[in-house]
Amino acid sequence: MNSEQFCENGRKMVDYISTYLEKIRDRHVVHNVTPGYMRPLLPTEAPQDPEDFAEVFKDIDKIIMPGVTHWHSPRFHGYFAAGNSYPSILGDMLSDAIGCIGFSWATSPACTELEVITTDWLGKMLGLPEEFLHRSPGRGGGVIQSTASETVLLCLLAARTRTLDKYQQTHKHMDEMEVMAKLVGYTSDQSNSSVGRSGLLGAVRMRKLDTDDKFSLRGETLRKAIEEDKASGLIPFFLCASLGTTGTCAFDNLEELGPICKCKQEDMWLHIDAAYAGSAFVCPEFRHLMKGVEYADTFSINPHKWMLINFDLSVMWIKDSSLLVDAFNVDPVYLRHENAGKGAPDYRHWQIPLGRRFRSLKLWFMLRSYGVTGVQAYIRKHVSLAKEFEQMVLNDSRFEVVADVIMGLVCFRLKGNNTTTERLLEEILQDGRIYLIPAIVHNIYTLRLAICAERTNSDDIAFSFSVIQSCSDRVLKRFPPTDDLRKAVIDVSDSQCSIETNGKYSNGDSPKIPYH
Amino acid sequence: MNSEQFCENGRKMVDYISTYLEKIRDRHVVHNVTPGYMRPLLPTEAPQDPEDFAEVFKDIDKIIMPGVTHWHSPRFHGYFAAGNSYPSILGDMLSDAIGCIGFSWATSPACTELEVITTDWLGKMLGLPEEFLHRSPGRGGGVIQSTASETVLLCLLAARTRTLDKYQQTHKHMDEMEVMAKLVGYTSDQSNSSVGRSGLLGAVRMRKLDTDDKFSLRGETLRKAIEEDKASGLIPFFLCASLGTTGTCAFDNLEELGPICKCKQEDMWLHIDAAYAGSAFVCPEFRHLMKGVEYADTFSINPHKWMLINFDLSVMWIKDSSLLVDAFNVDPVYLRHENAGKGAPDYRHWQIPLGRRFRSLKLWFMLRSYGVTGVQAYIRKHVSLAKEFEQMVLNDSRFEVVADVIMGLVCFRLKGNNTTTERLLEEILQDGRIYLIPAIVHNIYTLRLAICAERTNSDDIAFSFSVIQSCSDRVLKRFPPTDDLRKAVIDVSDSQCSIETNGKYSNGDSPKIPYH
Repeated sequence: MNSEQFCENGRKMVDYISTYLEKIRDRHVVHNVTPGYMRPLLPTEAPQDPEDFAEVFKDIDKIIMPGVTHWHSPRFHGYFAAGNSYPSILGDMLSDAIGCIGFSWATSPACTELEVITTDWLGKMLGLPEEFLHRSPGRGGGVIQSTASETVLLCLLAARTRTLDKYQQTHKHMDEMEVMAKLVGYTSDQSNSSVGRSGLLGAVRMRKLDTDDKFSLRGETLRKAIEEDKASGLIPFFLCASLGTTGTCAFDNLEELGPICKCKQEDMWLHIDAAYAGSAFVCPEFRHLMKGVEYADTFSINPHKWMLINFDLSVMWIKDSSLLVDAFNVDPVYLRHENAGKGAPDYRHWQIPLGRRFRSLKLWFMLRSYGVTGVQAYIRKHVSLAKEFEQMVLNDSRFEVVADVIMGLVCFRLKGNNTTTERLLEEILQDGRIYLIPAIVHNIYTLRLAICAERTNSDDIAFSFSVIQSCSDRVLKRFPPTDDLRKAVIDVSDSQCSIETNGKYSNGDSPKIPYH
Repeated sequence: MNSEQFCENGRKMVDYISTYLEKIRDRHVVHNVTPGYMRPLLPTEAPQDPEDFAEVFKDIDKIIMPGVTHWHSPRFHGYFAAGNSYPSILGDMLSDAIGCIGFSWATSPACTELEVITTDWLGKMLGLPEEFLHRSPGRGGGVIQSTASETVLLCLLAARTRTLDKYQQTHKHMDEMEVMAKLVGYTSDQSNSSVGRSGLLGAVRMRKLDTDDKFSLRGETLRKAIEEDKASGLIPFFLCASLGTTGTCAFDNLEELGPICKCKQEDMWLHIDAAYAGSAFVCPEFRHLMKGVEYADTFSINPHKWMLINFDLSVMWIKDSSLLVDAFNVDPVYLRHENAGKGAPDYRHWQIPLGRRFRSLKLWFMLRSYGVTGVQAYIRKHVSLAKEFEQMVLNDSRFEVVADVIMGLVCFRLKGNNTTTERLLEEILQDGRIYLIPAIVHNIYTLRLAICAERTNSDDIAFSFSVIQSCSDRVLKRFPPTDDLRKAVIDVSDSQCSIETNGKYSNGDSPKIPYH
């Protein structure tokens, strides 16, 4: 493909993208294929000779689109919002063209420096304590990671190293593996599946703690767990708290948890996973939900979820970056201070992979195109649409709302036992006009309606609720509620919902919702 | 930005990209800034209100480009090639627009299925054994990872789990940490820094083994190390062999190493890191270099290095994917077989992060636009340009070639001690018309000239060598060679090059070249 052909095909692609996103509402939101659908449509080997790109272009609609679930459709309410916006797409185009591999400042200073500046911008927008910023006098700063799941793993590994180092100074008779065998990290029973998985990857025990009736992890629960574990000879070293859990968008109580982690005798690493909800702190009215953030060692949000940036762009802030840099640094000493200093970190030490893209471009393009006020308006619109939907649910006496509606997520169900709501979901997925997914929280089977697309409006919400109502009509007609089912009581003994096995020291997890 | 504005700006960006890449030769290849250059050019906070995108566009040339090192310039010879091509950029544009998060088959079947098909295409193109393909009867298949460094870590962690499980069945008295404390993995002293780092991240001992005079790891060296370590009570569990080392593009001897790893009493995980050189196996004349690949458990290449794909797109093939899926699976049992079966893997289990982009689109676009013959021609051109450069070096009696020129990399130096060549590099970087980096191999300081850009031609190579010659003239004039220096003898006691500390059981590494 020469440059003229690229310009021609590039313009065609720009038009295709614009049409795709503007008319996405008209597409069937969920894919319409069965496993293996693509095999017969493509040859078993790559073509020997170049094909005309016009042929490739035709295959987008013919082969790709039937197998796409349209995450940016206003009819898509699954998981959480996946970010996207025109400026973000433009930023990625430029990043692809420059195609530098920014593992150190020197490989393309613009790649590192724009990341330093834009993560500072974003940290200030969220109202994070100054210690998390590159501009602060200390060793703080932000860095772009691929995902919140990778960030949790990185923080857990750095916390592991920090604790091992500390113990080897004070307990010289213990070898590293003896200490590792005693480490215990904590998270709530509502945290994302990736938190449990990071325990498996990091070869450390991860204990899931019970949450209160608001699905929030409380200080007293953590304190008791620590006491129990220390009594058994274990070494508490890490807490991953969630702001905006995957199931119901619940908020752990940082003001209670923070002081426990940071009291002198514990000195645990506190990581805050605010993957989805963190973007909302750009609006001051939501910042009360992150009170206690000042206790954290690390804090992360996914602008690729709820801040108009396409995947992948997750931002992590750390107060003391030397805890990352020193933990896994394989550079010879003489290189450490070359190009060092504030404003020129070698970001390869701040992450798990070595290579890195020029991802800050899309963040920069988006922030300048929307401005702080534009991002705030976007967040507020989603929250307000969720409130609209909540009201519709509350106005129909067949339904109940399962958790407080705080952000752009509504958890609701048909009153009665779990089976009824499971049947409703089957009916909705069968109907296919909208898409949503379930969660099981404290043995309650609930549907989750997330406001996902930038273009979602009140009519869309009304449409989605009308689909849910007509599906409910059909389900309740086919399976008329008995007196027992009509009671607004949750039958927690329902066998179909007892699938969560919260083993106290489980290294695993039982997510219905893997998206992070 | 509305759709009209996007179309306008998108077309502008397409033109900008085309002009940037077509005229990249005219740009100063290396950035021209000092640390912190961007701070004064940008405000300290994100803009409150939206800015006109025309302003943002202007800032690309004003603020970004001065800080960019142009990896796709024919004057860029650092690290290894970073892939790029017009079809790849177009594929990423579409991926950004669709913006699905393909962690499971169901979230967008096209994302998973195109990856299954294109990694099979690629595996066949390279001549990999059938067991590595999804189409094979077994549990094999390819998956797109972000980087080869992340792949090494993933394989090491899966190997760790496999060995722990095995030991706990046969040595029931040993607990997990006792076994972990005894694990030892191997790699050569020439492998990428990320291999050593994966030992740190995975909390296992990683031993670097000596290479022969061709910088190749040999079977006898591995066998001796295993014997020594087993005699000390350790448990060998993992070998990361390199095809195309970072320093000199050397090849470990798989035909010797494979049978040792796979003999019944060892049963070690063999991972082959062919990040750069692996792409060349698309040409049958290079496949003799991967003889013994059939012994491997996992094999990885970076099409984002040497196969015209922009970062990030690293491909890993595995013979038995259940070793990944079962090792870190946090799904409840009842979910495991939903949508399962050949052709529909849930790729989240095959990687470290949870989320994933629709990266196969750019691979598909590139393969169809170039065809197998186009990719072969690209590889062969780079190798032939390297041979041209080697000949120029050999024709100038002041220089010597340090390692066999097999792929698109030439390692060369001024005859004499290391200081002379170090001075030459300083002079070249000062000159600034071309860019290359050094390596230290077996205490020899060498310059590496990699053929990187798709557009590089014979004139470029001649130009680069003329720059090197004139820089050499200046260096040798300023520091006239003494009799001692004129001797083509390498002074291995040179203090400036004794920076590699190959501790036998080092968990660290001493890379001059971090790019992977």
